[in-house]
Amino acid sequence: MAQQRVIRVSTEQPTCVVCVVGTEISLALSGCVPKGATYFDVHGTSGLRVKVIYNPELVTKPTGTPRWPLNSDVEVVVGINGPSRAVNDNKVRVSYCGPSGETLASAWLYLTCMAISLDADTSRSGVVQTSTTNKTKWTWGPDGEGAVLLVNCDRDGPSSGNTDNAYPYVRSHTDLQDMSLVILTTEGPAGISDNHTLLLQVSMFDAAKLRVFHAGGNASLSSYEHVLGSDKLSYTVECSGGKEQNSFFVEGLAFPDAGFDGLVSLNATLLEACGQNSPAIPVFSDTVVFRVAPWIMTPNILKPLEVFVCSIEERANNKNFLEAVRALAKEANCKLTVCPEVENRGDRWIQDEMEFGYVEAPHKMFPVVFDSPRNRELQDFPFKRILGPDFGYVTREPENGRVSSLDSFGNLEVSPPVTVKGKEYPLGRILIGSSFPRSGSRKMAKIVRDFLYAQKVQSPVELYSDWLLVGHVDEFVTFIPACDRKGFRLLLASPLACYKLFKEKQKEGYGEAALFEGLEGVERKTLDEILADETVYDDNKYAQSCIDWNRSILKRELGLSERDIIDIPQLFASKGGGAHAFFPDMVNMLVLGKHLAIPKPFGPIIGGQCCLEEKVRSLLEPLDLTCTFIDDFFSYHVWSGEVHCGTNVLREPFSFHWWNIVP
Amino acid sequence: MAQQRVIRVSTEQPTCVVCVVGTEISLALSGCVPKGATYFDVHGTSGLRVKVIYNPELVTKPTGTPRWPLNSDVEVVVGINGPSRAVNDNKVRVSYCGPSGETLASAWLYLTCMAISLDADTSRSGVVQTSTTNKTKWTWGPDGEGAVLLVNCDRDGPSSGNTDNAYPYVRSHTDLQDMSLVILTTEGPAGISDNHTLLLQVSMFDAAKLRVFHAGGNASLSSYEHVLGSDKLSYTVECSGGKEQNSFFVEGLAFPDAGFDGLVSLNATLLEACGQNSPAIPVFSDTVVFRVAPWIMTPNILKPLEVFVCSIEERANNKNFLEAVRALAKEANCKLTVCPEVENRGDRWIQDEMEFGYVEAPHKMFPVVFDSPRNRELQDFPFKRILGPDFGYVTREPENGRVSSLDSFGNLEVSPPVTVKGKEYPLGRILIGSSFPRSGSRKMAKIVRDFLYAQKVQSPVELYSDWLLVGHVDEFVTFIPACDRKGFRLLLASPLACYKLFKEKQKEGYGEAALFEGLEGVERKTLDEILADETVYDDNKYAQSCIDWNRSILKRELGLSERDIIDIPQLFASKGGGAHAFFPDMVNMLVLGKHLAIPKPFGPIIGGQCCLEEKVRSLLEPLDLTCTFIDDFFSYHVWSGEVHCGTNVLREPFSFHWWNIVP
Repeated sequence: MAQQRVIRVSTEQPTCVVCVVGTEISLALSGCVPKGATYFDVHGTSGLRVKVIYNPELVTKPTGTPRWPLNSDVEVVVGINGPSRAVNDNKVRVSYCGPSGETLASAWLYLTCMAISLDADTSRSGVVQTSTTNKTKWTWGPDGEGAVLLVNCDRDGPSSGNTDNAYPYVRSHTDLQDMSLVILTTEGPAGISDNHTLLLQVSMFDAAKLRVFHAGGNASLSSYEHVLGSDKLSYTVECSGGKEQNSFFVEGLAFPDAGFDGLVSLNATLLEACGQNSPAIPVFSDTVVFRVAPWIMTPNILKPLEVFVCSIEERANNKNFLEAVRALAKEANCKLTVCPEVENRGDRWIQDEMEFGYVEAPHKMFPVVFDSPRNRELQDFPFKRILGPDFGYVTREPENGRVSSLDSFGNLEVSPPVTVKGKEYPLGRILIGSSFPRSGSRKMAKIVRDFLYAQKVQSPVELYSDWLLVGHVDEFVTFIPACDRKGFRLLLASPLACYKLFKEKQKEGYGEAALFEGLEGVERKTLDEILADETVYDDNKYAQSCIDWNRSILKRELGLSERDIIDIPQLFASKGGGAHAFFPDMVNMLVLGKHLAIPKPFGPIIGGQCCLEEKVRSLLEPLDLTCTFIDDFFSYHVWSGEVHCGTNVLREPFSFHWWNIVP
Repeated sequence: MAQQRVIRVSTEQPTCVVCVVGTEISLALSGCVPKGATYFDVHGTSGLRVKVIYNPELVTKPTGTPRWPLNSDVEVVVGINGPSRAVNDNKVRVSYCGPSGETLASAWLYLTCMAISLDADTSRSGVVQTSTTNKTKWTWGPDGEGAVLLVNCDRDGPSSGNTDNAYPYVRSHTDLQDMSLVILTTEGPAGISDNHTLLLQVSMFDAAKLRVFHAGGNASLSSYEHVLGSDKLSYTVECSGGKEQNSFFVEGLAFPDAGFDGLVSLNATLLEACGQNSPAIPVFSDTVVFRVAPWIMTPNILKPLEVFVCSIEERANNKNFLEAVRALAKEANCKLTVCPEVENRGDRWIQDEMEFGYVEAPHKMFPVVFDSPRNRELQDFPFKRILGPDFGYVTREPENGRVSSLDSFGNLEVSPPVTVKGKEYPLGRILIGSSFPRSGSRKMAKIVRDFLYAQKVQSPVELYSDWLLVGHVDEFVTFIPACDRKGFRLLLASPLACYKLFKEKQKEGYGEAALFEGLEGVERKTLDEILADETVYDDNKYAQSCIDWNRSILKRELGLSERDIIDIPQLFASKGGGAHAFFPDMVNMLVLGKHLAIPKPFGPIIGGQCCLEEKVRSLLEPLDLTCTFIDDFFSYHVWSGEVHCGTNVLREPFSFHWWNIVP
C-alpha cells in the first residue's frame, strides 16, 4: 500500500497541498457536503490518477455521467505521477450534486507534487540506484534486498590514534570509502520550501550505532559535515527547487550484538508548517534500512595470506621454531610477520591474543582483528600493530574484567562450509570451547559469546573443552583442506588410535622403543612402560570419552559422517585441574594451504622413523598434503601449547557474500 | 538424526556400555582390526537394530555371507529398541575376517539399554505426554510444538509479601498450579547407577529465568525441594532401577524482554564415571524447551469484568462522576471497585497507573497488572491491592528514575484483532504514543518499550502523541465494538468534523448558542465567537494535521480503510507545550461492551439538545451502542483528563491462544 495522506476539501476555498510522488491522497469529501447533495463527481488534471474505490456489493458503478453516492462506502484516492513544474499545477475538482444531477457546489484541491527519494545500495550491486522501492525491509538471501553498512573500525588515518569511527569527522578520502553512500534526491518547483522542511533523521537508538556525513560541494575533507549520530537526531536538508541530489556518507559505529540486531534506519521526512504558533507536522517519510555487516571468521581451508609469530629470545627461545615457520611460510607463498620481543614482552601465544576475520559490503571489504579479552603481555599488539589502513579492530571485554583461559582465541575456531540436514552454512560454523553445564565450570565470557552469536552468519556450536587444563578447542580439533568429498577433513586427537598404534608396535617387538628420545633433560618412556601404566590408561580413556562426546556434537552440528573424520594418534595426561598433551599435540597444527606445520611428537623411533610421524603422514599425505613436523618441544609444548597456539594466520575472505545466506 | 555415540570395540575383551533408547551407537571398528583382516561381519541380539551404512557408489553390498570391506566407506550403526531387563543383556558381535572368509578374531559389545525421557506439555494440551520427540525446538502456530512456562508473578500466598516467584519454595498448593509440570521417566535394570549419574540441569543464563522444584513422595509442601535456579545449575536424580517417574514443577521468573527471547531449556544428562581420578563425562542428553508466556493486553472489544475508579473527596470531588460510573457498570453487568482516597491519596488517574493484561499456558491462565513507572500517589495501589491469588504483577522502571508523561498508561492501548496485507494479528497490536523523532522530544521509557516489543504477540505501533500537552494516545484515539465489518470501529478526535458541525449550526441561525452553558465560573463561548477566533482555528488546523498523520499510520499498520473510522467532533487548544481538549474530550471514553461512558462535552444547546451529543449519538447509536454522557468537567476535564483517564477496566482474555500466532 502506498503511503497515504488524508486531505479534506472545502467548497469555500481551494485546498492547497504539497504531496510526494509515489504516495496517494485519500480525499475526505464529507467535510463540506452542501445541503441537499446526494452524489458527487470527481476529476483531476493529467498529472494525477484519480481512482474511486467502492464496495461493489454495496455500490453500483454509475454508468453514463459518473455520479457516485455520497457515503462512506465510496472513497476517492488520488495518485501522483510526477513532480510539478510549478506550484499548484495539479488540480482536482469535486462536484457535489443534487438528486437530479444538478451541481450544488464544487471543492478544489491544488496539488504541488514533489519527488523525494532516499536511496542506498539496496540491491547490493556496489552502487546506489535512485528511486528504488522496498527500502524499508531488509531481507536475506540471493533475492534479498537491503543496504549494508560497515563498522568503520579500521584506521585510515591520516595519523595514528583510534579507529576512524571514533572521530566525528571524515579523516581522509580513503576513510570515506569505508562508508555507505546515501543519496537524497528531490525534485519540485521552487517556493515549496517556504512552508515545508525536509529533514534527514535517525532514531535515538540508531543514532548510537551510526554516523552520517553530508557531502559538501567540493572535495575538501572539511566540506563533509557531521549531520547525524549521537546527539544529532535530525538535519535540515535545503531544497531550493528543481532536481537536486544530496549525498550522505554513513559509517557504522557498532557491530551486531546482544540487544542490537544490526538493523538501523535513516528517514527523510517532509514537514509542513502549520500556522505561526504550532510546530510543523510530518506529511511524508521515506526510510532506508541498513544491516551492519557481521564480523566473519575464516576457516583453515581458505588461502593463507600472512602468518604471524612471536620472536622469543629470553627463556625458552624459539629461534629454530621461528626459522621453521619462516621456511614453511615461504613455501606456502605467505607473508611472515614476526612480532618482536619488545612488543610481545615474552608472551608467545599469538593465537590466543586475537582472531582474524573480515567485514564485507558490496562496495568494500577489509579484514578485522578481534582482540581477545585475555590481556596478557601481547595485549597491545592487535591495536598497535594490526589496526591500520583497511585493517579493522574490534574487542569485547567483560565489565568485571574476569576472564578465564577459555577466553583465549585458541578456543575460538570456525569450520569450513557445511550442510546440516539440508540447512546450508556457506560460511561454516563457529566452534567455541565451553564447559559441560555444571556449576562453577569455566566458560567463555558472555560478552564474547553474545558477540559471536549476534553475527548470525556462522551460527556457533559449543563444544566441551573444559576437560582440558588449558581448555581450548584447538587442543583436540582442527580442519584440513581435502580435494574430495566436502572439501575438508575434521581431525580429532585420538588416544585410542595412539594406543592401537603403540600396541601394534609392541607386538612387532618394539616395546623398548621410547618417546622423547634425545630430548635433553626429558625422561624417555618406552612403549612397554606406557602401555603398562594404568594411570596413563585411565587418563586416556577419560580423554577419549570427552573427545567422543565432542565427536558426536561435531557430527550432528556439522552434518559429518565418520568418513569426514580422521583420528590423529595422541595421548593426554592429567594434572590437577585437567588434561594436557602427553607428547606434542599433533592436531594443534598450523594449516597453510596444502602445507601442514605439525608439532613434532618425538615418538618412538622404529626403523629410523618416528612411528607417530609415519602414521600421520600415511593418513594425511594421500590427501595431497605435505606434513612438516616442527620441533616446538621446549619453546611451546612444555608451556602447555603447540604450533597452532604460537602462530596466527590472516586468510583470504570467502568469495561467498554473507548477505546471500538465509540464516 | 538420532543422538549418536561413538563406541570403540576391542578383540581383547568385551566392551560394556550403557546406552539410551532412541539413540544410536556408531561402532568404531578400525581400532582393533587384526592383522590380515580385510572384511567384517556384524550381528546383534534381538533388542537391537544393526544397520550397515555404506556408499553404494564405492561399496557393493555383499551377497550370500554378509562380508563387508573394512574401510571408512562402511559404517555400523546400532539402534536400541527398548530398555534392558538385565545389565549387559544386549550384545553385538563383530567378526573380523581374512581375504578368504576365515574369522580371525571377534569383538563383543555388551549393551545395557536404559530409557530416559524428559517431558513437558509440548503438545499444548494441558497435560504432559511422556516419551515425546521434537522437544528441543519451540515452534509457533496451530501446528507448533513446545511447552509454555508462566511467570509465577501472582501471590497465592498463604500470607501477603511479594509475588510467589520471589520465594525459593512452594508457598501453597494453589501456587503449584501456576507452574509447569516436567516428568523425567527412566527405565532400566538395577545396577546401572553404580557408574552412571543422571542430572537435571539448566544453563547459567536460563537459571536466572526459572526455578525448578522436585516433587517429593507426599503431598506436604515441604516435600517440594528447590533443585534448580539461581546458583543451582544441576541436580542429581536417583535411579534405582525399574520404571521410575520423577515430577518437577517449573516456574518462570522473568518475562521476555530485551536480551531475553523467552526461551529456556532444561536438560537431563546421563554421566558415565571414567576411572577414579577423572570426572564423569556426558554420554546422553535430553532437552525440553519452554517459552515464557508473554504478557497480553486486552482491547476495548473484549468483555469487561471489573471497572476501577478512584474516590476523590477533597479538592474537585468526583462524587457524581463516581455514581454515574457505578450506574453504568451495573448496567454493563460489571463489578465496580472503588479505590478509596486513603489509597489513591488524591491521585485520580487510575488509567495512567496501570494496564491490565494476562498470561496464559495450556494448563493455566491468570490476569497480570502492569504497573507503570509513573509513580505518583497511586503508586502502591497495583502491588498492594491488585496483586493477589491468581492475579499477577509486573513492572518496569528506568534505572535513572526519569519518566515523562508518555510513560503513563493512558498512553498505552491495544487495537482489536486486525489483518494487515494478509498478515494476521489475532490479538491486535499495541499502540504506544511517541514523539515524532526529534532531539529532546518525549518518548515512553526504553525499558517499558523494550518490554512491550519483547512480548512479540501484539507487535507495537508507535503513534505520534507528543503534540499533546499530556501526550497520551487515549486523547485522540479509541476503539468501540461493532457487529459488522471487522467487529470494531476506530474513533478519532476530529477538529474538522467539529468545525463542520458548528458552521452548519451557525448557518442554521444558532450562532449565539454557546459552549459551557451553565458551568459555574466557566466563560460561555458562542459558536460565532469560536468560528471567528483565528487562534482557535490555527490550533485546530494543527491538531487535525497531527491526527491525520496518525490516521495514516493507523490505516497502514492496522490495515484499515476510511469506512472503519468514525470522526468524533472535537476541538483542541494550545497551551505552551502542547495541545489539550478545548471542551471535554469525547473519544477519551470508557467502553463497557455496548455501553459507552462519554465525557459530557457541554456543547451548544440547540432545540433543547447538546448538538455535540446529538451528533455523536447519530454516529454511534446505529452500531447498537448506547451513549451515556458523563459530567467530568470539574472533576477530570479541568485537570487535563477525562472519563477514560479516570477509570480502568479488567477484561476477559482472548479465546485465541497466543501460541497459535505466527509472529
